[in-house]
Amino acid sequence: MSVTFPHGFLASGVTAGFKASGRLDLGLLLCEGDAAVAGAFTTNAFPAAPVQLDRRRVEAGAARAVVVNSGQANAGTGSAGLRDAEAMAERTGRTLGCAADRVLVCSTGVIGPRVPLDLLDASLPKATAALRDDGGGEFAEAILTTDSRAKQAEATIGRWRVGGCAKGAGMIGPRLAAHGLGTLLVFLTTDAAAEPAALRELVSDHVVPAWNGVTVDACPSTNDTVLLLAGGAAGGPSVQPGSVEARDLGAAVGAVCESLARLVVADAEGSSKTLVVQVNGATDAEAARTVGLAVASSPLVKTALFGGDPNPGRFLQAIGASGVVFDGSVVSAWLGDVAVVHRGTVPDPVPAGAANVMAGPEVLLRIDLNRGPGAATVFGCDLSHDYVEINSRYTT
Amino acid sequence: MSVTFPHGFLASGVTAGFKASGRLDLGLLLCEGDAAVAGAFTTNAFPAAPVQLDRRRVEAGAARAVVVNSGQANAGTGSAGLRDAEAMAERTGRTLGCAADRVLVCSTGVIGPRVPLDLLDASLPKATAALRDDGGGEFAEAILTTDSRAKQAEATIGRWRVGGCAKGAGMIGPRLAAHGLGTLLVFLTTDAAAEPAALRELVSDHVVPAWNGVTVDACPSTNDTVLLLAGGAAGGPSVQPGSVEARDLGAAVGAVCESLARLVVADAEGSSKTLVVQVNGATDAEAARTVGLAVASSPLVKTALFGGDPNPGRFLQAIGASGVVFDGSVVSAWLGDVAVVHRGTVPDPVPAGAANVMAGPEVLLRIDLNRGPGAATVFGCDLSHDYVEINSRYTT
Repeated sequence: MSVTFPHGFLASGVTAGFKASGRLDLGLLLCEGDAAVAGAFTTNAFPAAPVQLDRRRVEAGAARAVVVNSGQANAGTGSAGLRDAEAMAERTGRTLGCAADRVLVCSTGVIGPRVPLDLLDASLPKATAALRDDGGGEFAEAILTTDSRAKQAEATIGRWRVGGCAKGAGMIGPRLAAHGLGTLLVFLTTDAAAEPAALRELVSDHVVPAWNGVTVDACPSTNDTVLLLAGGAAGGPSVQPGSVEARDLGAAVGAVCESLARLVVADAEGSSKTLVVQVNGATDAEAARTVGLAVASSPLVKTALFGGDPNPGRFLQAIGASGVVFDGSVVSAWLGDVAVVHRGTVPDPVPAGAANVMAGPEVLLRIDLNRGPGAATVFGCDLSHDYVEINSRYTT
Repeated sequence: MSVTFPHGFLASGVTAGFKASGRLDLGLLLCEGDAAVAGAFTTNAFPAAPVQLDRRRVEAGAARAVVVNSGQANAGTGSAGLRDAEAMAERTGRTLGCAADRVLVCSTGVIGPRVPLDLLDASLPKATAALRDDGGGEFAEAILTTDSRAKQAEATIGRWRVGGCAKGAGMIGPRLAAHGLGTLLVFLTTDAAAEPAALRELVSDHVVPAWNGVTVDACPSTNDTVLLLAGGAAGGPSVQPGSVEARDLGAAVGAVCESLARLVVADAEGSSKTLVVQVNGATDAEAARTVGLAVASSPLVKTALFGGDPNPGRFLQAIGASGVVFDGSVVSAWLGDVAVVHRGTVPDPVPAGAANVMAGPEVLLRIDLNRGPGAATVFGCDLSHDYVEINSRYTT
């Protein structure tokens, strides 16, 4: 059900022709009234046109609808691209009967080509007519590019329902800034009522850390976008920061993000295995995440993971190359429960159990830096022949 | 001739049994008298035992010999590994008849296993007896691991001869600090006479920038080491910083480093193509190098290069994700002479000539950030099926 799991949201997905494949490629998400909105966007120096547009509109804190095309990223398209993004909002608003500045726009696909607006015009009535309160599945399908399947999650904690969907299988290594993900698109909805300021805090505390800890290929896209819309259909007063209600909502949003993050790395381009890196003992969470990302981004770790090769030296190398300052002689690491780094040294020979852990579909590496209270969990995947194959002929 | 191109140096390479393959795996380099020495070493937080040892000895500024084993990296080996490195220096010194603290040690190979000192003992006499003033070729062979061929270069500028050799095909993404490279080992020799302080300046100005601009897989090793030995056989007074002689020596050292850097990326694990990224218009050289490395390290750029796929959006994405601050709307880039980014926008359709450039064995990408005088050249390579194959079963 994804984005339509919370009451008060309608969604649809139709085929407009943006993708040559004939699969669903135009998604609409509509809130029954004005929703409070917060977002997080790519820090890439070439933000796509829809990112530039949404950043400004999310500042205002209110939204009614989101329109998404997949096939063209509307990135590297200059001022013409920005006019196209504005036109997408305006035409969607006109069709839905809401103000253009209440419509957010997302695009994903090839960087360079412009969005064919004639295809949008021809399919907006169909997408609008298809809007349903259980349309989250079609919406989640319509936003996909090289993904093999839709990624949806939901959680109910306390009074709140939170639903979400994500797309992204390559060019995934988000470095997000709140108020402001390769292309990673994440749509989160809730029936809670919340002021934009409270939503922004939620995004900073629960959404950005979760997604900045996900990597397929360490490539932050021009289009990475996470949007959180709070429609208020659950009723009652706005969620107040610091309250039990805010904690419940944060926990539900965090749970949905973690579920979606696991789905993203499991469906990563060419991926056959998931790598979960749990880092403890860092000076702070940011340092822990940096170490975890250094390991999960290393081509040598990723190829060893693909081959099931228990090569602890590569973990040692990657931990040491993170740029984070620590005392190597007190650092230890475990593959599952098998010690592969013990106080800065690598066991020789490598314990036999390590190969068993590396052979599994999800490999857990725990790292203790033994320095402070900072902890983070990072989700990654292997680097396979299929990744090379997919990405060596993406546009040709 | 590599390290024996300048007069005053002897070298050898023999088979000691460190590698299972039976190829040369023990190298000796001897200066006829005390040489002035300067070096640059990995900044990985887990520096290998020989790196820890050499850092201290290079501080003293004088060296007579270098001993190198290939097969075991002597990294992640703790205090036992440090004692092994010290023993390698001591036993080599004893055999050569020089003080142990004038012997530098380098190791390369698998991280974790200790160096079998009995193999060293058994082969040091043979390696010593094999020392010749044209032995640079055997030395350059003996330091290889996954490399397919020896990498040697030489230059004569003004009065000075400079020779060098390098090894390294994977775990290459050095972040060096002077006085202080996976494993990249580079040995540079000259017949110039120079004080250690003058050599250190040369390393900072010409050696570190060159090698920090080389990437195979963006993985800074535990063992990266560059050593520059000045034996003085050319005669005359020591080279004075700022002099014509210092400029000549710097130019020769720089030329040898660039030649070796090209050989390293051409022989990179699984590599079928070289990528040269020339960045201009940055605020400074460091910013230019950071942008170049972001492009040359991107798995999406590297797989597109492998497939010969002219996908300009990936260049745009990688330039924008470097973390360097600039105005995207004035940035342009060319594949050879074909514009692929024009003032922040990607041409649609992609110009036909782009595919021709991508099909060549060496692909030149020029980037102009249009912001300042900073420039740098970065050397990289493609990401192929062979890289995945080699690295998915390195120890198994």
